[in-house]
Amino acid sequence: MVTVLKESTDFLAIATTLAEEFAKTAVLRDAKGGTPTEELKKLRESGLLNLVIPKEYGGIGETWPKALKVVREIAKTDGSVGQLLGYHYFNTAIPRFFGTPEQYAEFSTASARHNWFWSDAANPRDPDSILTPDGENFRLNGLKNFATGTKCSDVVIVGGRREDLGNEVYAVIPSDREGLQINDDWNYIGQRQTESGSVAFHNVLIRREEILGNPDSNDPPRPFATLFTPLGQLVFVHLYLGIALGAFAEAKKYTLTHTRPWIISPAETAAQDPYIIEQYGNMWVDLAATISHADHVTLLAQAAWEKGEELTVAERGELAVSVASAKVLSTRVALDVTNKIFEVTGARSAANKYRFDRYWRNVRTHTLHDPVAYKVYEVGNWVLNGQMPNFTLYT
Amino acid sequence: MVTVLKESTDFLAIATTLAEEFAKTAVLRDAKGGTPTEELKKLRESGLLNLVIPKEYGGIGETWPKALKVVREIAKTDGSVGQLLGYHYFNTAIPRFFGTPEQYAEFSTASARHNWFWSDAANPRDPDSILTPDGENFRLNGLKNFATGTKCSDVVIVGGRREDLGNEVYAVIPSDREGLQINDDWNYIGQRQTESGSVAFHNVLIRREEILGNPDSNDPPRPFATLFTPLGQLVFVHLYLGIALGAFAEAKKYTLTHTRPWIISPAETAAQDPYIIEQYGNMWVDLAATISHADHVTLLAQAAWEKGEELTVAERGELAVSVASAKVLSTRVALDVTNKIFEVTGARSAANKYRFDRYWRNVRTHTLHDPVAYKVYEVGNWVLNGQMPNFTLYT
Amino acid sequence: MVTVLKESTDFLAIATTLAEEFAKTAVLRDAKGGTPTEELKKLRESGLLNLVIPKEYGGIGETWPKALKVVREIAKTDGSVGQLLGYHYFNTAIPRFFGTPEQYAEFSTASARHNWFWSDAANPRDPDSILTPDGENFRLNGLKNFATGTKCSDVVIVGGRREDLGNEVYAVIPSDREGLQINDDWNYIGQRQTESGSVAFHNVLIRREEILGNPDSNDPPRPFATLFTPLGQLVFVHLYLGIALGAFAEAKKYTLTHTRPWIISPAETAAQDPYIIEQYGNMWVDLAATISHADHVTLLAQAAWEKGEELTVAERGELAVSVASAKVLSTRVALDVTNKIFEVTGARSAANKYRFDRYWRNVRTHTLHDPVAYKVYEVGNWVLNGQMPNFTLYT
Amino acid sequence: MVTVLKESTDFLAIATTLAEEFAKTAVLRDAKGGTPTEELKKLRESGLLNLVIPKEYGGIGETWPKALKVVREIAKTDGSVGQLLGYHYFNTAIPRFFGTPEQYAEFSTASARHNWFWSDAANPRDPDSILTPDGENFRLNGLKNFATGTKCSDVVIVGGRREDLGNEVYAVIPSDREGLQINDDWNYIGQRQTESGSVAFHNVLIRREEILGNPDSNDPPRPFATLFTPLGQLVFVHLYLGIALGAFAEAKKYTLTHTRPWIISPAETAAQDPYIIEQYGNMWVDLAATISHADHVTLLAQAAWEKGEELTVAERGELAVSVASAKVLSTRVALDVTNKIFEVTGARSAANKYRFDRYWRNVRTHTLHDPVAYKVYEVGNWVLNGQMPNFTLYT
Repeated sequence: MVTVLKESTDFLAIATTLAEEFAKTAVLRDAKGGTPTEELKKLRESGLLNLVIPKEYGGIGETWPKALKVVREIAKTDGSVGQLLGYHYFNTAIPRFFGTPEQYAEFSTASARHNWFWSDAANPRDPDSILTPDGENFRLNGLKNFATGTKCSDVVIVGGRREDLGNEVYAVIPSDREGLQINDDWNYIGQRQTESGSVAFHNVLIRREEILGNPDSNDPPRPFATLFTPLGQLVFVHLYLGIALGAFAEAKKYTLTHTRPWIISPAETAAQDPYIIEQYGNMWVDLAATISHADHVTLLAQAAWEKGEELTVAERGELAVSVASAKVLSTRVALDVTNKIFEVTGARSAANKYRFDRYWRNVRTHTLHDPVAYKVYEVGNWVLNGQMPNFTLYT
Repeated sequence: MVTVLKESTDFLAIATTLAEEFAKTAVLRDAKGGTPTEELKKLRESGLLNLVIPKEYGGIGETWPKALKVVREIAKTDGSVGQLLGYHYFNTAIPRFFGTPEQYAEFSTASARHNWFWSDAANPRDPDSILTPDGENFRLNGLKNFATGTKCSDVVIVGGRREDLGNEVYAVIPSDREGLQINDDWNYIGQRQTESGSVAFHNVLIRREEILGNPDSNDPPRPFATLFTPLGQLVFVHLYLGIALGAFAEAKKYTLTHTRPWIISPAETAAQDPYIIEQYGNMWVDLAATISHADHVTLLAQAAWEKGEELTVAERGELAVSVASAKVLSTRVALDVTNKIFEVTGARSAANKYRFDRYWRNVRTHTLHDPVAYKVYEVGNWVLNGQMPNFTLYT
Repeated sequence: MVTVLKESTDFLAIATTLAEEFAKTAVLRDAKGGTPTEELKKLRESGLLNLVIPKEYGGIGETWPKALKVVREIAKTDGSVGQLLGYHYFNTAIPRFFGTPEQYAEFSTASARHNWFWSDAANPRDPDSILTPDGENFRLNGLKNFATGTKCSDVVIVGGRREDLGNEVYAVIPSDREGLQINDDWNYIGQRQTESGSVAFHNVLIRREEILGNPDSNDPPRPFATLFTPLGQLVFVHLYLGIALGAFAEAKKYTLTHTRPWIISPAETAAQDPYIIEQYGNMWVDLAATISHADHVTLLAQAAWEKGEELTVAERGELAVSVASAKVLSTRVALDVTNKIFEVTGARSAANKYRFDRYWRNVRTHTLHDPVAYKVYEVGNWVLNGQMPNFTLYT
Repeated sequence: MVTVLKESTDFLAIATTLAEEFAKTAVLRDAKGGTPTEELKKLRESGLLNLVIPKEYGGIGETWPKALKVVREIAKTDGSVGQLLGYHYFNTAIPRFFGTPEQYAEFSTASARHNWFWSDAANPRDPDSILTPDGENFRLNGLKNFATGTKCSDVVIVGGRREDLGNEVYAVIPSDREGLQINDDWNYIGQRQTESGSVAFHNVLIRREEILGNPDSNDPPRPFATLFTPLGQLVFVHLYLGIALGAFAEAKKYTLTHTRPWIISPAETAAQDPYIIEQYGNMWVDLAATISHADHVTLLAQAAWEKGEELTVAERGELAVSVASAKVLSTRVALDVTNKIFEVTGARSAANKYRFDRYWRNVRTHTLHDPVAYKVYEVGNWVLNGQMPNFTLYT
């Protein structure tokens, strides 16, 4: 059932093909929200779900730069599926960060074999979900908002605080585990098919071996484990960039085919209008720079990933700052481009049948994940004061 | 039935009360589109429809600065109704620009007496509607897009080109005139209750006396008549400003009541966060400047209006440039503020139940009316080369 | 000796004439720094020094809006003399804020009669100058930086802290008072002829009657007295605006006479180039808005001035916020315009013989007076939290 | 005499050492203008002049990415010497573009052996210098402005139009060739020690073999030869970036050591002030993105360089667009950073003893080389219309 892909396969080409297919229904699906069932099915069939799972565990073993380019490619036409895929890749790496090597091997192998789609329900800003010992195992109770993709996933990473020891733990459990109640309440202005609603835990069984790492340890995370947040933030960078590039491409197509030159324009076609050309030029300068910077930072992230346990706190900190800079840049450029496309397409491009506003709504919605102002702060505090950002679930 | 209002009445207070009322259903109505029937009914009952009709014709005889402040006030909570009202005021003045003094008196008197709501179907970028002589009178055939409010109006200003003489004429006709087909096809991303869809004319009778001015004349318009476009553009300025101020006010309310300080914020409340305060400060600096400039330019427009037939081409040109500068400014500030409000309200403010994106969608939609780039051009060409913008239906 | 001017005189025309004259040597004087001796002489002869001194004391009795327009006009060609004149006007008002009515009458009368030029040596960020009782009178010791114009003034407002009581006092003394040592050390990148160097006080005699108000009082200032800072900040607004308008005007002249169209420009002259026109348009939109806002806020300031002792703390606070918004705006626009003029004039406009960089250097230097970031903060804290800025010597 | 350097040498470290040394006198030399004699001497001694000359001709054989990083490094503290060195590297490559392989070998070998410093006198916007046949050889007459570094060079590339055939030719001649008159008239607001004044040619002998390529050919340049302009523009990118990074570094040092926290700042030191940190963060985000993009584009340029004669017109065009995007970006960021540094350093940082304005003056002066607006146009016309920029001496 799963397409067998080899390292030599052109995954980006597969992603492009999928993106083109997803584009056909993107307008409709933005309107109705809900689950991109058909698209996730095609993602599964494409083999792309196993892209970053190491070859020794049956995956394709690709690098983060390749995987995040795939995310970017999908996000060009479908911000929601782009986010779901990006989170999936990121979530498959969580056992590497917080689990034992054996757990990483085990979960990866199972994932590759069953072609799992991963999600998470671990929003740190909610009052903690509480993990209570129950014999050998545990029980989880509480609520998590913004549990992206849980509804359409095979496994979900849940986070909770142990009531008795006070430590935070993560566990990988099947999404259909009893007591895990998906509230199906995602209704936001953008990223409308990400199923990012809330999840309630009613005495959910968490087996000891499902908990990543030592469930009884209150030790601070290893430096390498804290690479986890910058990697997640890097997913966002490529997501925003992808959406912006998609908006740009669609605007271009529209300008070339629909837009009329303004009544006092010296040009015979809109595409020859000096101010329209200028605006495309300005958007592209920003996009090109964002691509270069995102790609550069992603190479740094891959290097940090490859360092593994040898990664130092300082190296992790510098990477976090680099990722933050890419996050700030991509946030700004994506908001700007998705807003400006209307100025190069003209009055009729605001017709609802195009839903060109979805690009802005998508970017606007997800860029609120954590305040860009504090990413700027973290960059500034490092560059001025040499102060590394503290590890949090946002940095 | 019509509330009798005097000059001494505080029309702005009435507008504020209406705006607050409209706010209650604004989210719902943004979602469903269509006609703001109830709101237009309340506008009618409030007496505000007669605000700029001269007292000698039974109106309230207020100035444009007052009337446009009313538009701005309504637009704060309801961009659609704000647009409908602004267009209405503007349309009631069209007989003053293009008609004879007698026509202005007659239409104004009828309007005040019957509490008419005015609309127009005269988009100049559509292939001309054609006016054909038919005995004493004429017949109109053709199509006009963006016929704001025609569906919910009593009278509509239609524009057409006389087939035999080639001149453009405007006429005031009842909106239910036979053959005037309202297509009810407005479905845009913003300004969703403006009923700005298309109108088709199927052999619509246009009586000779309904045509403003001399239907047989091909003379260029008098300078005063060309004041018509800057006045219309000025309506837009106050519309954008109103929407932006409304977004700002709603964001403020949300920040003060819902937003949580960021996890690494030094502040105990979001409203004390240095970056949130800064962003409110920056938005307000821009809004305050836009208010000052819009108000200043509106006074200039009122002075030009009062000059009447003594208005020179040069004076009209300078006013058009001033209005253009206010249009550019209000466009930019409104786009910026309606985009940025999310950054001071936080992730949950993107929930669809608030529909905070409607402010941006409203501004984004209407600011495409004509390209801001060419307004900048007109300002630049005047300030650098002393070149007055040519009169068009956009300048 | 002094030109006798009446209220009916067109002071703005006088200012324009002076500005044109000052322009002839502005490049040279920017290069050499030092004192604009000749220019101050002409200012004296013009009668403009007495512009805001009330008529009952022999002055011209003009309003702040008129006076600040004169400052703006002078600043167009000569930022330094503009600053000196603006500070002078402001300093003549200090006795009104901090002195008794009799002192205001007395100092104003003497100023008008002798055509005084006023300066101040009261920078609050320096370690306090200390005032020590000496019989009836006092002695002042210490140092003040940024004592604009003291070198070329007749009287200077000095500030000091009473050693025994701890209160801050201001006094008006002749600039040649013994022990007042002008260090002649102003050498900054801009505003090069403002003589804003340091002044040392060596046991300088301060007569009891020279101290404004009650020298023995430690009462907080009356609300009206605290109007003093916003009024001073408003001088800055018009100064920046004047410099920016001067830069704009000179750039325009250059573009029209010297600039060549770029090799791939579709235009035959630089002034017809679409991007040059656009840049002039954008600069003018910002300048026009800044003018409107500055003028509006200046009217508010005049109203507050006229309220006199009836001015409430809240009214003063709102004015301070309005002035802050104008300060932020004019700072940004002036920096932007003085930077951008080069892009519309071309490579050869950077020749040192034009010294077009002086506009930017002038704005850059003075806008550092107090951080614009904290003006934004004050605006934001008011608009979001209703918090009035505290009275300081900067707000 | 010449330091013997090997490929393994850390040229960047040498550049850093030189830059630190040049920094000591940079303020002084900015004030006096003229020739950086001592600095050029040190450059010569360092061996860096031979950096891009191929090893087979006795040079160091480094790549453009390495060489341009050296330029950037020098420009951090000395924009003038950075420009001179960047132009030198570029000029040594001109024989590769326009000469025969033998000429490239010959000139390179001589350059390496004699440690030549190269300059050019070929500004294309001046009325053509005219080349007239004179027996075997030619005579050159005319004037060229902006002949950077000619005064302090060993050889100069001159450009002229053959009077008889109409073709443009370039030649390499000794800078002290009889009749080549250096007017020593460079006095601009920035880049004050670049000796970019004018050069007059009075019947200057140009030997046939000094002319690059076939002096009798009117063929259009080979695609590879047209790589010449993007490579030159890329030098500018690194120059601007270097100056901006230097400004940033110096500002940081000042903030950390001199700046006081503002009176209402919540912070105890300026470096902990939230708005100062934010501004450093914002500047760094932009600088980091510019570095990433410049480095990326420089790799593309190196690849194009290595393609040699196989480079296609399309590949050259795409590179030119990429370089244009980096030029636009670096122009904007450098202007912005060199302007903003004052806001994080405070009022006293505008003292002339620091001459912090030199960074802005340097960037402002050189970025006028060709209008950034038309670089935006070229990017836009490519990305929207697929139109490659035409080869000119600016693109």
